[in-house]
Amino acid sequence: MIAAIKNINGVTVQSATDDTFRMHLGGKLEICSRIRLNSRAALSMAYTPGVARICKAIRHDPRTAFTLTIRKNCVAVVSDGSAVLGLGNIGAEAAMPVMEGKAVLFKEFGGVDAFPLCIDTHDTEEIIQFCRLIAPTFGGINLEDIAAPQCFDIETRLNKELNIPVFHDDQHGTAVVVLAGLINALKLTGRHPSNMKVAVSGAGAAAVACTRMLKDFGVEHIVVCDSHGAIYEGRDIGSNRVKRWVAENTNMDRQQGSLPDVLRGADMLLGLSRPALLTRHDILTMNKAPIIFAMANPTPEVMPEEAAGAVAVMATGRSDYPNQINNVLAFPGIFRGALDARASTINAEMKQAAAFAIADLISDDELLADYIIPSVFNSHVAPAVAHAVLKAAHHSGVARRMPKKIKMTV
Amino acid sequence: MIAAIKNINGVTVQSATDDTFRMHLGGKLEICSRIRLNSRAALSMAYTPGVARICKAIRHDPRTAFTLTIRKNCVAVVSDGSAVLGLGNIGAEAAMPVMEGKAVLFKEFGGVDAFPLCIDTHDTEEIIQFCRLIAPTFGGINLEDIAAPQCFDIETRLNKELNIPVFHDDQHGTAVVVLAGLINALKLTGRHPSNMKVAVSGAGAAAVACTRMLKDFGVEHIVVCDSHGAIYEGRDIGSNRVKRWVAENTNMDRQQGSLPDVLRGADMLLGLSRPALLTRHDILTMNKAPIIFAMANPTPEVMPEEAAGAVAVMATGRSDYPNQINNVLAFPGIFRGALDARASTINAEMKQAAAFAIADLISDDELLADYIIPSVFNSHVAPAVAHAVLKAAHHSGVARRMPKKIKMTV
Repeated sequence: MIAAIKNINGVTVQSATDDTFRMHLGGKLEICSRIRLNSRAALSMAYTPGVARICKAIRHDPRTAFTLTIRKNCVAVVSDGSAVLGLGNIGAEAAMPVMEGKAVLFKEFGGVDAFPLCIDTHDTEEIIQFCRLIAPTFGGINLEDIAAPQCFDIETRLNKELNIPVFHDDQHGTAVVVLAGLINALKLTGRHPSNMKVAVSGAGAAAVACTRMLKDFGVEHIVVCDSHGAIYEGRDIGSNRVKRWVAENTNMDRQQGSLPDVLRGADMLLGLSRPALLTRHDILTMNKAPIIFAMANPTPEVMPEEAAGAVAVMATGRSDYPNQINNVLAFPGIFRGALDARASTINAEMKQAAAFAIADLISDDELLADYIIPSVFNSHVAPAVAHAVLKAAHHSGVARRMPKKIKMTV
Repeated sequence: MIAAIKNINGVTVQSATDDTFRMHLGGKLEICSRIRLNSRAALSMAYTPGVARICKAIRHDPRTAFTLTIRKNCVAVVSDGSAVLGLGNIGAEAAMPVMEGKAVLFKEFGGVDAFPLCIDTHDTEEIIQFCRLIAPTFGGINLEDIAAPQCFDIETRLNKELNIPVFHDDQHGTAVVVLAGLINALKLTGRHPSNMKVAVSGAGAAAVACTRMLKDFGVEHIVVCDSHGAIYEGRDIGSNRVKRWVAENTNMDRQQGSLPDVLRGADMLLGLSRPALLTRHDILTMNKAPIIFAMANPTPEVMPEEAAGAVAVMATGRSDYPNQINNVLAFPGIFRGALDARASTINAEMKQAAAFAIADLISDDELLADYIIPSVFNSHVAPAVAHAVLKAAHHSGVARRMPKKIKMTV
């Protein structure tokens, strides 16, 4: 805006206060002490010599670390800065403001203490080793803005190796909110997941995670398109393991062709690809009363104005249109529930429970085509998600019992 | 105490509140947001889309990360848990309460945001690589409770490679406070560093750092003893590079023999070794009016009661005797000054300046044999140290200029 004003003939900007820059001065986070250190006695409990007894208790039973240290409530937000927002690979230093922002959201919406760790490498093995090393400090790891396909390997292997949840939010946070929106869109349009066709545009991290989640939910007919068109078994997809999974697990009819070809007769478009890829004409070729989630940033695959009247339900990633698909509806509550359960992982059951919890916050009475997703400022969202995730963790056997009594060394 | 009460015949303890354990429930730290997130406008400045402009500014000039992110004030406290207090190698999980305590002290005394990172490895190369990876997130790295001799290599190599300060507190924090105490002890006993003999007991991390610092200060005659006695050039010291440095840079007379042999006629004993190693008899063989810093934990090399009357000045590591040598007098102010100077390293000039600042807090009028070191609760210590360190950083050319103006992308 300042630039626009400066461009007006005859106008000179003497000085400008930039609220966004001012908000960032000194960073957005602070490490605070939870204890008062106002006496020699307090000092000798919080630090040497008293602290040695706490160390010995954890040495005796490592599970007590989840009670006696910040592990109880602390999540690492790890990024290599390789796929930040729409900015691409901007590196660790420049990615920090985003990860600090993420930590702010974790605290504000989930009461989770999150610390940003932007690391100076793009090597898959180094990122994995880094997360292994920091695991004793944290109760969970949130991977963020790491490019595909590296992000898939990193998350899969860490979830196998570590006994704390490792969650790539760009994949699963998006997938959870997409499923929540879909659950409500199906109610509105009277569809059932088993007899609808979904066209997915994009085969990146979020698109593939959404595809998996929709499949788990019971959607049988999904066709994923990358920049070369439909992915089908038999197409040359190089050594990309994730696209191979897509080829083997979707598009059972082996449909070929471009995205507009695939869209013809489809019930839903799930766009996680590039801006302005489609026209009103393409939408009109879909099945009647189609559902469109167009989440390319900052411009959707098709603008709501262009699709108006031709769609039953439309959602985007933007806050200035109805039905914003925003991860902040999912990750704070998901980690809140996982930490409270001391869950060893965040599994499919927990993610699906989170999606249903978000969808259920809108009652059938309230449900409208322009209101299938609750607001990010709805304070009921995170507690509802946390509760559902906690329950699902117990049901699916990944919640951990803690020692009933801590052995206090004296 | 509870155990002692339980041992009394006929006494049954029904329940006991343990203040130290209670203090540690949920950990000692919290990550707090420095901004209010109470509107959609605030959300879109702190996170997407507004935050992208901050990312671009840092991408354009990485120095601005020290203004626009937590790097400005944030230090990592990194430990592998291999040499924790007197507990030895207790591993990463059990070391966390100590590192959290350290972070509490950083905040309380220096206003520094410190975050504990306990890592699951004891491998020198892995620890170095870990610190390299996290460097973009922090303004400095405090290495803590890492065993010798690995700690020497780790610190030396990181200080060469990274452009932020890397400081092993067990070495230099101790050395700074020892030098502060010595400066005042010399005033009291009318000695000069160039004509005194110092016997050092111990050749671990802290002992060697003190030796270097005393040498830099002008002490010419130092003999370091390990468990085999005096270290001298020509003695078999295996492949230990640090002991080789000791052999080559101290004990110019190549004195041989045990610690009691070395102590005979010495002006000062600097004990950083094992409890109750010496008797009053040994002290009586020293030069008259000797200075004893006996810092073995929890029991000094010789107890103050045993040395009473035979020493001019006595200091220990304990809070229940006068003259406590406590690192907390040094590290909060040192990092405060280094961060404020945006120093690329913490060099010898800055450490010596810190020692003089601590010593100078006791005026000549106040100076007593039982008061050569200020109290850890003296609120003037950290600001005085920070100011001296900041000045020394500028004088020695390691303070960095920051961009006068941040390019705001619009």
